Amino acid sequence: MATSGKVIRCRAAVAWAVGKPLSLEEVEVAPPKAGEVRIKMVATGICHTDDCVLEGGFPNVDFPVILGHEGAGIVESVGEGVTSVKAGDKVIPLCIPHCGECSFCRNPESNYCQKCHLSEPQNLLPDKTSRFTCKGKQIHHFMWISTFAEYTVVPEYAVAKIDAAAPLDKVCLLGCGFSTGYGAAINAAKVKPGSTCAVFGLGGVGLSTVIGCKAAGASRIIAVDINKDKFAKAKELGATDCVNPKDFKKPIQDVLTDMTGHGVDYSFEVIGHADTMTAALASCNMNTGVCVMVGLVPSGSVISFDPLLLLSGRTWKGTVLGGWKAKDCIPKLVSSYLEKKFNSDLLITHTLPIAKVNEGFELLRAGKSIRSVLLF
Amino acid sequence: MATSGKVIRCRAAVAWAVGKPLSLEEVEVAPPKAGEVRIKMVATGICHTDDCVLEGGFPNVDFPVILGHEGAGIVESVGEGVTSVKAGDKVIPLCIPHCGECSFCRNPESNYCQKCHLSEPQNLLPDKTSRFTCKGKQIHHFMWISTFAEYTVVPEYAVAKIDAAAPLDKVCLLGCGFSTGYGAAINAAKVKPGSTCAVFGLGGVGLSTVIGCKAAGASRIIAVDINKDKFAKAKELGATDCVNPKDFKKPIQDVLTDMTGHGVDYSFEVIGHADTMTAALASCNMNTGVCVMVGLVPSGSVISFDPLLLLSGRTWKGTVLGGWKAKDCIPKLVSSYLEKKFNSDLLITHTLPIAKVNEGFELLRAGKSIRSVLLF
Repeated sequence: MATSGKVIRCRAAVAWAVGKPLSLEEVEVAPPKAGEVRIKMVATGICHTDDCVLEGGFPNVDFPVILGHEGAGIVESVGEGVTSVKAGDKVIPLCIPHCGECSFCRNPESNYCQKCHLSEPQNLLPDKTSRFTCKGKQIHHFMWISTFAEYTVVPEYAVAKIDAAAPLDKVCLLGCGFSTGYGAAINAAKVKPGSTCAVFGLGGVGLSTVIGCKAAGASRIIAVDINKDKFAKAKELGATDCVNPKDFKKPIQDVLTDMTGHGVDYSFEVIGHADTMTAALASCNMNTGVCVMVGLVPSGSVISFDPLLLLSGRTWKGTVLGGWKAKDCIPKLVSSYLEKKFNSDLLITHTLPIAKVNEGFELLRAGKSIRSVLLF
Repeated sequence: MATSGKVIRCRAAVAWAVGKPLSLEEVEVAPPKAGEVRIKMVATGICHTDDCVLEGGFPNVDFPVILGHEGAGIVESVGEGVTSVKAGDKVIPLCIPHCGECSFCRNPESNYCQKCHLSEPQNLLPDKTSRFTCKGKQIHHFMWISTFAEYTVVPEYAVAKIDAAAPLDKVCLLGCGFSTGYGAAINAAKVKPGSTCAVFGLGGVGLSTVIGCKAAGASRIIAVDINKDKFAKAKELGATDCVNPKDFKKPIQDVLTDMTGHGVDYSFEVIGHADTMTAALASCNMNTGVCVMVGLVPSGSVISFDPLLLLSGRTWKGTVLGGWKAKDCIPKLVSSYLEKKFNSDLLITHTLPIAKVNEGFELLRAGKSIRSVLLF
């Protein structure tokens, strides 16, 4: 058992280079400095974004790195000045920080903290050093939270205390995937009761969007995927129709327009492909349709589209972490989970020990898992 | 004076072919059929969209055609069943119809009638015939309203009765340009008091957007144009800063970001170029920024952009006729004009007889006019 204030030796899945499997290694985790929190991770989901990094498609990541950004754990120790969490607290590390002080955090309509990794690299902690070493080498952090390590150190504004009753092997999904998809419907699109929605891509985030659309009262939810094996789960979660674009000769936007008269009220792209992003835009009605971009596109992607698609009145928008102000909202989502307002457990198809992390990625790539949760 | 029920011979500016000047011709205007209204035009503005047609950049227009879509006049006669206007009423023909019956019209958030010219050609009246002939040839209608004719025939759902006190040579601008720009700020962006706005393009519509931003209470309005001769008028109408992209080596979005810290709250593209559309998007803040596409792009244009611009939270949307439900709202805008809630007269730089229509287009192309109003 680790002792606060000392270096902890523990296991972590290290990504040494793009395109290589992860290596389970013994790493050293330095104690938290002022304003930092060391967390004993209990569980972590595997998200498509982690795989995107391994494929080299995520900007500003330095290798070697400890990935993972959808975890839940227990505070082991805190650095000087930390007040919002203490040792023993159950917590979720925040892949989108929430400093509460920048102009974006102070804007009630915004959840994008200016400390977010899309604005500045988070390969080192804010003091520009790493807390991880392995075999004498410095290992980089990822999004400041690196949940594929048994112990991780994060800035205080990148961790939120959650209800002590929360099952960490379940609510870890609320750290990224579930909250991103669910919030895309609730916060970004603000889906209205009785509306029609289309969700492109039925991975963990897309299915969470289906859950969000249903929770918001959508009367028709059309789930779109080229893998028909995803359809049973989508229907279980609330999809009313499932459509495989491969079953049609015409473009999917024409199929959806035929199904709905003038296109859906809300469309969600939860894949991360330029082509499906324009298809999702064209699938919502030309007038008041709202298309929300949720999927992470590979770095350097370019979307080309006919501006008339927008000019007639459509709205196209993006969202990170479903629009939730992380430090305030993730604990509330955990409470909602405990109150059974949604059942994100249905997204967990596999639970594996951390030693099987590469198996978890293989399941993801093969489309055989929705969410694999790794346990330490 | 024309007699109801008979063919009227009168003047009209006919566009015989793409790329040719207009010809002032004597045309025959047939009486209105059931559900139609014949209007004696009094005044009409020249809008960039008319020029776009003459350049061949507007979709689904058939030549020969009588252009013009920003007019005001007096009802000469009505066809069977018309109830909302009668002979002698002052009216504005509607370039975006408002049937009141389609699902878009019944949606309180939408102003895009399904009878709009972007959905179906309006080169002939709804019964698929023309009311115009010239030299024995059928002449096409434009957007159903063809305001470059001394008399025109329009469907009842494409005309709105306005206050009898309205000066037609002034309020004609409310038929398109002013309402489009003003509404982009008021309805599409919903500009908030105290916010920062950027308006790209200071033609008649862009300047109307400046008026709209000011009316909505924006505290900073940055007017952007490569023609510095436009800046004095922009400042008169409410712009707090005027920026010429040619004065900078860095991209205009970087200039605006430097000026504002994190980009503007609302940006408006009122030019119709693919490049300025992405620049306008990048100029609003990455988080809660809203970019409204107002400018009409040439048919077949393609916009290419980095999807990360949207993913971080921006909203990109388009609007037609400023989001106003035309038959209901244009008369209210006329009332607001009469109550001096805005001064659209400042946009009128030239008043010309219809015989000088080509001179009006030359002034527009040379950037020397904001709005030229043609009088019959």
